[in-house]
Amino acid sequence: MQSKIRVGILAATGTIGQRFVELLANHPKFEISALAASTNSAGKTYREACRWQISNGPPSQVADMLISECKPDLDCELIFSALPTDQAREREPEFASAGYKLFTNASPYRMRDDVPLLIPEVNPDHLKLLPAQQTFSSGGFIVANPNCSASVVVIALAPLHAAFGVKAVIVNTMQSVSGAGYPGVPSLDSLDNVIPYIPGEEEKMADETRKMLGRFTDGHLHKAPLKFSAHCNRVPSRDGHLETVSVAFEKSVSVDEITAVWEAWYPEPQQLDLPTAPHQVVSVRKEVDRPQTRLDRDTGNGMTVTVGRLRSCEVLEYKFVALAHNALRGAAGGSVLNAELALAKGYLQ
Amino acid sequence: MQSKIRVGILAATGTIGQRFVELLANHPKFEISALAASTNSAGKTYREACRWQISNGPPSQVADMLISECKPDLDCELIFSALPTDQAREREPEFASAGYKLFTNASPYRMRDDVPLLIPEVNPDHLKLLPAQQTFSSGGFIVANPNCSASVVVIALAPLHAAFGVKAVIVNTMQSVSGAGYPGVPSLDSLDNVIPYIPGEEEKMADETRKMLGRFTDGHLHKAPLKFSAHCNRVPSRDGHLETVSVAFEKSVSVDEITAVWEAWYPEPQQLDLPTAPHQVVSVRKEVDRPQTRLDRDTGNGMTVTVGRLRSCEVLEYKFVALAHNALRGAAGGSVLNAELALAKGYLQ
Amino acid sequence: MQSKIRVGILAATGTIGQRFVELLANHPKFEISALAASTNSAGKTYREACRWQISNGPPSQVADMLISECKPDLDCELIFSALPTDQAREREPEFASAGYKLFTNASPYRMRDDVPLLIPEVNPDHLKLLPAQQTFSSGGFIVANPNCSASVVVIALAPLHAAFGVKAVIVNTMQSVSGAGYPGVPSLDSLDNVIPYIPGEEEKMADETRKMLGRFTDGHLHKAPLKFSAHCNRVPSRDGHLETVSVAFEKSVSVDEITAVWEAWYPEPQQLDLPTAPHQVVSVRKEVDRPQTRLDRDTGNGMTVTVGRLRSCEVLEYKFVALAHNALRGAAGGSVLNAELALAKGYLQ
Amino acid sequence: MQSKIRVGILAATGTIGQRFVELLANHPKFEISALAASTNSAGKTYREACRWQISNGPPSQVADMLISECKPDLDCELIFSALPTDQAREREPEFASAGYKLFTNASPYRMRDDVPLLIPEVNPDHLKLLPAQQTFSSGGFIVANPNCSASVVVIALAPLHAAFGVKAVIVNTMQSVSGAGYPGVPSLDSLDNVIPYIPGEEEKMADETRKMLGRFTDGHLHKAPLKFSAHCNRVPSRDGHLETVSVAFEKSVSVDEITAVWEAWYPEPQQLDLPTAPHQVVSVRKEVDRPQTRLDRDTGNGMTVTVGRLRSCEVLEYKFVALAHNALRGAAGGSVLNAELALAKGYLQ
Repeated sequence: MQSKIRVGILAATGTIGQRFVELLANHPKFEISALAASTNSAGKTYREACRWQISNGPPSQVADMLISECKPDLDCELIFSALPTDQAREREPEFASAGYKLFTNASPYRMRDDVPLLIPEVNPDHLKLLPAQQTFSSGGFIVANPNCSASVVVIALAPLHAAFGVKAVIVNTMQSVSGAGYPGVPSLDSLDNVIPYIPGEEEKMADETRKMLGRFTDGHLHKAPLKFSAHCNRVPSRDGHLETVSVAFEKSVSVDEITAVWEAWYPEPQQLDLPTAPHQVVSVRKEVDRPQTRLDRDTGNGMTVTVGRLRSCEVLEYKFVALAHNALRGAAGGSVLNAELALAKGYLQ
Repeated sequence: MQSKIRVGILAATGTIGQRFVELLANHPKFEISALAASTNSAGKTYREACRWQISNGPPSQVADMLISECKPDLDCELIFSALPTDQAREREPEFASAGYKLFTNASPYRMRDDVPLLIPEVNPDHLKLLPAQQTFSSGGFIVANPNCSASVVVIALAPLHAAFGVKAVIVNTMQSVSGAGYPGVPSLDSLDNVIPYIPGEEEKMADETRKMLGRFTDGHLHKAPLKFSAHCNRVPSRDGHLETVSVAFEKSVSVDEITAVWEAWYPEPQQLDLPTAPHQVVSVRKEVDRPQTRLDRDTGNGMTVTVGRLRSCEVLEYKFVALAHNALRGAAGGSVLNAELALAKGYLQ
Repeated sequence: MQSKIRVGILAATGTIGQRFVELLANHPKFEISALAASTNSAGKTYREACRWQISNGPPSQVADMLISECKPDLDCELIFSALPTDQAREREPEFASAGYKLFTNASPYRMRDDVPLLIPEVNPDHLKLLPAQQTFSSGGFIVANPNCSASVVVIALAPLHAAFGVKAVIVNTMQSVSGAGYPGVPSLDSLDNVIPYIPGEEEKMADETRKMLGRFTDGHLHKAPLKFSAHCNRVPSRDGHLETVSVAFEKSVSVDEITAVWEAWYPEPQQLDLPTAPHQVVSVRKEVDRPQTRLDRDTGNGMTVTVGRLRSCEVLEYKFVALAHNALRGAAGGSVLNAELALAKGYLQ
Repeated sequence: MQSKIRVGILAATGTIGQRFVELLANHPKFEISALAASTNSAGKTYREACRWQISNGPPSQVADMLISECKPDLDCELIFSALPTDQAREREPEFASAGYKLFTNASPYRMRDDVPLLIPEVNPDHLKLLPAQQTFSSGGFIVANPNCSASVVVIALAPLHAAFGVKAVIVNTMQSVSGAGYPGVPSLDSLDNVIPYIPGEEEKMADETRKMLGRFTDGHLHKAPLKFSAHCNRVPSRDGHLETVSVAFEKSVSVDEITAVWEAWYPEPQQLDLPTAPHQVVSVRKEVDRPQTRLDRDTGNGMTVTVGRLRSCEVLEYKFVALAHNALRGAAGGSVLNAELALAKGYLQ
């Protein structure tokens, strides 16, 4: 039996860090060998340092592991980063320079020309950007996963874009409070309220969507030329980002054709049977009132995007609803799947 | 001093019925002389029959008034109806035939050619449809107010439509649970959830918007030819419908021009100083994160529409956020204002 | 291999009925052979008739099973009943008379002298009441599980009662909305609110506690003579009943002794390794702020009672906090465990 | 006309600071002449510095007032303090030493022997402690109002204590998130959860209750010798602390006698018609399910304590439910009423 790859987690005690721990505690290919967090937490056990938010307490494998500081001397080959933006901007290049293969959920390097902004089902060939990274020859690199709200709409649109060409998109998000981390949104701001603004989110969604739906040809990434407009809102749900989408295509297309494309989609991660890849990338619900945040966010262990209510839009052409779990598909799960794809493609040797 | 007009309320014990009671208990022009509800409640005092949902208990003027059955023999001239759809379809024509002037929040007759679907600030001249009603000569008629979610967007768009011509609209609603009445949405469906479907709501919004923004000329109502597409969602807030709007205009226009039109809007109900008309029809917030449901729904005693975040939309032309109190501006308050306009225009003699 | 016992579920589409389905779909001893619900649902598939509330949809084994009417001609030996009170009062004796072994979550027969009100860890010997039931010789009988809020405090107190004698208890419940079933509590009553009243609940808690902590001797059940006072409240959480308890004992006792008794408790269902019995009946948390409803309700698959904050009470002697999942330990899980105990004890032959 | 007393507010931008502003903006006796907050906010206008949480925006009288630093050189005679604990401990004596009359909502000096812990309806004569304060001769002093959760139960018990003697109390609180200030409780901790712990709260409730129900005789305060045990919980409501209370009295007493005492209570602040004193100190509801947090917290402009469900308790003697608005009666409103009493009694000359 092949030994597992030793992995470290940066910001391991936060909301997304905990999801990394949850997903990696029993992973068939990776094993957690390092947990890093703030100077405050360093030296404590994970159990002591972490205010565990998920049911049933931290996994026993890591509960008594000691927390390290976030410095590039961790005992591991591969890093998952849940660092906040400012720290990510500073620290992540240090880790890549030191030869670590870094899979990050943070935003600072997502739009860099030589960083793959990766969803394995959507743009696996963007991994070909890696050799362009300066640190690649020394073994280190950065792969980013997208913003949690971008994940949902991009996965729903990707097979349609391949089949029919997406021309224009208007999306309205209804995002859960866990998307803002911990402590994140104060109760006084969320209880009995909707906040129609999340800093930077609308721009990220547009930019990241065009990058991920872009094509890698001639050694370069060509962004998708589609028009994209987002309205981002925070609503009082715990997990799961629900999004309504209006879309226009390059080609004329029917409801049945769109549904058929979603249901037939069986991309590379599913073909490769990657451990974190859901059986169904997109699940199409037929009921008039689905997906719903609470009922469908855990589909496919939180890695499936559930869509429904596909119908014509009088202004663009079609409209529908899409949902995914922001902390799993939209963050930690997406990053773990990225590493699994990189492993399968030979980038982790 | 002129004596007040005696008014009755149908379905007076429900969520919207209670709002009618709240608004009419101390009204300068109207006085409550009849309260009607289901056979179950008839004969009880209002206090006994009503599960009062608003702070501070039912007003003392009506608390001990006896409930009547919903039959067209009520001791009043004017009726406000909060009847559920099925009962409204059957009963409201009986009241109009019996000579009552009926102002209804119910949906069955909103789209009838001879029924004004009225927002006093938006289409006061639609009252001219009244003489076409068969019962008009006998004194009875029906005036409807729109669906609560249509009110918000129509008020925000009306002055822009007049100034620049609205060509296309995509709106996404985030509607509070009080919009579904009582008992309405079960807690198990709303807590930690979003439901992306409200039966009939999307169609109503489109149809009613085109009717209300239509022009009355040559004795006929010509619906506005704009394209309209709605995504309607139920979120876990109590009161207030928040809506995100993308819009395209006939004319080229700037952010400043749009803002100027909103701020300068001072239509007839405000000029006439109608009792329920808010000082400002549209309040423009400059903060990046406003309006918010809880903070802004009570602006102008729940009769003002608050807008914010006006910015360009890459797909249509502009996008913004709009909010109003669904049970006040969007229901009972809208209906009371309709009656005040009808009074000022001489339709209640 | 022994074949499984065929079981039916009454009111299978409701909140608790769904939990029965969830627990029995892959049970090692029981298999679902009949699903019964209202006349409305009869003849439909379970998938069609049921508004499934739990993540991930109804189990595939039952999704296409046809719903029967609630009549005592179901194809099964054993019945789990989630009937509402009125229907339970009428129907359950019919099933017992027809020879069905009935395990019910309903309240009407809980306090009947010959009905075991059973928590397998607490009073397994109360099953000895069964032969006194008139229908027993024909094979049919009724076993009840307690009210969901009684389960929590009784399990926490049972080992202390055995060791030290409970003299007096004041308990305050903070109960989740799922305890009221579906549609149950309207959103307008739960959002941003606490309701300090649940019909009949306080009396049930007192009566049921005294019965369950009673002793079966000389062929009779002698209720525990303890004083019991409950304050029952509905709070805006989805699942899990959190209770604060003040208690006085017959004997003088220390915090360490109480903790030791809880941690050492390893009663018959755990010794017999019954499938639904949790490894730990009572989990003692040391943190100052635990148990918490959301974090601890799923401990032991929702069958463990989590306690914490044990400290002295200036008025009685000690006080602590206890929590369990109302729909699992407090309802369907409790009933399934009752049937497992009855099977192990030879009552299902 | 007598000119108003000029008052300053410390920590004016926080949750309780905003309530002080709301209550004092149109006060008949006091006028806001200084607003102080953190160094960060100093120099900004109140509108800029404050994230206003209450409907309708900050009052126009203060919106453009400049924020000062929290130093004892404010242009006012009287200070209302909403300082957090640590700052209050350090700063409040500085203000008293500088001759300011300070009314504080903070906890550090509540239990000091020479500080009146005041609820005007309960213990107005405790103001007689003031001359014992070292700074009194120079004009400065400290008067404290109690912890928000103590206010509720103390007001409900005070007239009963006077009439029958309270011997023992067990209270369970269900406290709203606004009690923890802003940002306070993270959404991830409150949504779908109950937290059965609030640091220091249970001890404060016991100590403060005994002090406030104590008697001032022979120049000394003699604490009430009653037994008191509290269970304190945070629940997902916005405003209002609901408490269940079990109580034993020195004298034998009936439900009717208790009710009569509550309803007849008309203490000094009501007799003096102090501006912030509610018409009814205690409102007794007869319905089985009242008070409820959302429906009753605003009674008497948030200054009335609403009680209900009075019935016998099998363990102590009686039990009931009590509710008040934590940010008004339990904090800012309590403090303003304290100042009004001090004014009426001649302590502000």
